[in-house]
Amino acid sequence: MIITLTTDFGLSDPFVGIMKGVILGIAPDAQIVDISHDIRSYDIVEGAFLIHSAYEYFPEGTVHVVVVDPGVGSARRPIAAFRGGHFFVAPDNGVLSAVLDKHERSERSASPTGRSHDKCEPDRAKPSIDVYHITNRSLFLDSVSQTFHGRDIFAPVGAHIGKGTPIESVGPRIDDFLKRPLPKPRPQGDKTLGTVLRIDKFGNIITNLRRRDLSDDFTIRVAGLTITRLCESFSEAQRGEFFAIEGSTGFIELALDQGSAADKLSIERGDEIEVESASSNH
Amino acid sequence: MIITLTTDFGLSDPFVGIMKGVILGIAPDAQIVDISHDIRSYDIVEGAFLIHSAYEYFPEGTVHVVVVDPGVGSARRPIAAFRGGHFFVAPDNGVLSAVLDKHERSERSASPTGRSHDKCEPDRAKPSIDVYHITNRSLFLDSVSQTFHGRDIFAPVGAHIGKGTPIESVGPRIDDFLKRPLPKPRPQGDKTLGTVLRIDKFGNIITNLRRRDLSDDFTIRVAGLTITRLCESFSEAQRGEFFAIEGSTGFIELALDQGSAADKLSIERGDEIEVESASSNH
Amino acid sequence: MIITLTTDFGLSDPFVGIMKGVILGIAPDAQIVDISHDIRSYDIVEGAFLIHSAYEYFPEGTVHVVVVDPGVGSARRPIAAFRGGHFFVAPDNGVLSAVLDKHERSERSASPTGRSHDKCEPDRAKPSIDVYHITNRSLFLDSVSQTFHGRDIFAPVGAHIGKGTPIESVGPRIDDFLKRPLPKPRPQGDKTLGTVLRIDKFGNIITNLRRRDLSDDFTIRVAGLTITRLCESFSEAQRGEFFAIEGSTGFIELALDQGSAADKLSIERGDEIEVESASSNH
Repeated sequence: MIITLTTDFGLSDPFVGIMKGVILGIAPDAQIVDISHDIRSYDIVEGAFLIHSAYEYFPEGTVHVVVVDPGVGSARRPIAAFRGGHFFVAPDNGVLSAVLDKHERSERSASPTGRSHDKCEPDRAKPSIDVYHITNRSLFLDSVSQTFHGRDIFAPVGAHIGKGTPIESVGPRIDDFLKRPLPKPRPQGDKTLGTVLRIDKFGNIITNLRRRDLSDDFTIRVAGLTITRLCESFSEAQRGEFFAIEGSTGFIELALDQGSAADKLSIERGDEIEVESASSNH
Repeated sequence: MIITLTTDFGLSDPFVGIMKGVILGIAPDAQIVDISHDIRSYDIVEGAFLIHSAYEYFPEGTVHVVVVDPGVGSARRPIAAFRGGHFFVAPDNGVLSAVLDKHERSERSASPTGRSHDKCEPDRAKPSIDVYHITNRSLFLDSVSQTFHGRDIFAPVGAHIGKGTPIESVGPRIDDFLKRPLPKPRPQGDKTLGTVLRIDKFGNIITNLRRRDLSDDFTIRVAGLTITRLCESFSEAQRGEFFAIEGSTGFIELALDQGSAADKLSIERGDEIEVESASSNH
Repeated sequence: MIITLTTDFGLSDPFVGIMKGVILGIAPDAQIVDISHDIRSYDIVEGAFLIHSAYEYFPEGTVHVVVVDPGVGSARRPIAAFRGGHFFVAPDNGVLSAVLDKHERSERSASPTGRSHDKCEPDRAKPSIDVYHITNRSLFLDSVSQTFHGRDIFAPVGAHIGKGTPIESVGPRIDDFLKRPLPKPRPQGDKTLGTVLRIDKFGNIITNLRRRDLSDDFTIRVAGLTITRLCESFSEAQRGEFFAIEGSTGFIELALDQGSAADKLSIERGDEIEVESASSNH
């Protein structure tokens, strides 16, 4: 049984190790996998994007514990959710928005071949999504602090679910969980405005654009630069070329051959990108 | 069976991976958990603080391997220890000081509810602490270098203990292990002087003060700033407020709402904090 | 069964977590160990050095997945290899060069005692090395992207081999795999020129020199500094002294007592080191 962890805790402090200790105390056979702990402090949108990019590559039955929790100790609810064979435990602050968005298509269906691999979601249009308000204190650590619910609530509840506690037993089913969908591309006149979702380690600029947002003769304008080529692979690019590519997350990325596009263009998360179709200029 | 690793090795080099390879070669079923590898190079006090903060959240029987080892290759002894159901393997340089300090109270008893969860320590005043000088070379790698005892001594000894080798068989019991207690708050006139133990990833300033060190009308002075409010949770704070809070480690932390207090105040580990009671001014 | 991962993906992005999800979907009992994910982007030589330094500390039967892959999506082949009881899966770009170099001696034989521990390589002069071109698509994810073969090819093939799929079944045996041996020390007149292979976390400068490259009265010149002392351990050095030492990887390292030699000397990977024998001056 697998439990994944996605947090903004970093790896320098013992927070993540402590959560793992708590999990293994409850579920000694858990395989614990780190997805990322380098989410920017309190950045709920980044957390939502990351867990959505990653969860479907784990087997069904995996429990994903996601803790980006600026409101720890406030009245914000802890929630547990089920979608497509996967379990999620997180604060109710929007960090599960992309995962719990029925209209958000599966990353794995975004593969170049177009084949879908989500055997668990036969009816793609209406995936079954169930969300619960976690209230069952018998699943928490005996003592719950007001500063570290990752340790006191989310880790132990995740471990109990992983160990077989039915998700319904965590508390009442709810529908009014907080939704903060990932920003969508917006039409503006004959252009489309996209947004930078994330910069990856290689300096590739991950946008919220999909391949369908680019016409055959698209022009992307970003930081004074014009990109008109969509490469199928990184190795297709010319030495030093800026180009667009459908990245491994299914989103369009802007890349620089053998370099960091983000550094070169001084682009950051949240920056805007302009897309137009050459033919629309006529 | 769980083995935790706490080192100053970082994660860029293969040192930690190599230690895991050695452990799994001896104890193939070990669950290995990283507590932190980002201790500042050679910083024994930081290592002592981190392992003390974390170990009790692991189940009894866990083996904690702690390697901050500026004296590798010198005459400093390798030691193994037992406290409250937990095993420890480390160099005898003080890095286990907080764990092996009978007067250091358990972190887990520092919870807001005040309830103790250390079932393994029924007599809190006198925890049983046993320390051994590791001399049994049959537990080491065949060849012991003078530069990487984490790989050649600490990892294999930890793996053997985890696998069931009695701790007594590592070598003779000793009482003269090196003690470097965490710095304690010091009274100075009608004030108390505290020390910064660590800055966490969020920029919270972890002090060596406990809640009992703060009167109802306390004033903390740090870097020209005055803090008079103790919040129960981070979310209680006003936008942009500096405040004190009992952190998840049981120590008083100085925090800035939605920001890094340490960056804003240019505070570093080891800096001094002044606490006074308003009533003591009369 | 153990699968190790060595990549230039970093830990901030979900790439490594996703690879682990894929592996555990195929081989649920795999013990996955990170060797390093902080290889400099696209740096094949650094990857080759790291996996070579680390692999022999894992038990026989371990599968090592190594992904430093600037040519992802190009015609470069994926390969699987077997040497000395260990399996390797990687792009055919030289990142396995040191591992697959018959003339590269085993790290573990480089121990100070000179004893060899490679029971799996009885005939050290001619280790059995077998390399295969991975072509069997039934071992890949159903859909293979052109941007993330770590996820789509290397992780699943590694998991299948770990689970018992015979390595011969990945595809045809080849001998023309790409070789990029680690740079060797070069004689120049009566001197020897070495190269910096890597800077470790402590700032130690790992060179490509072996102990045999240093005469009894050697002089190393680097960045205007002269080093003439070979210490057996770090603790032997004087306060603030620069010295040479046979590091844990079996290579000569240049170190500064309690400090970062690399920072102090402004040395980087690839920089040159000059060694001469005092007696050769006569």
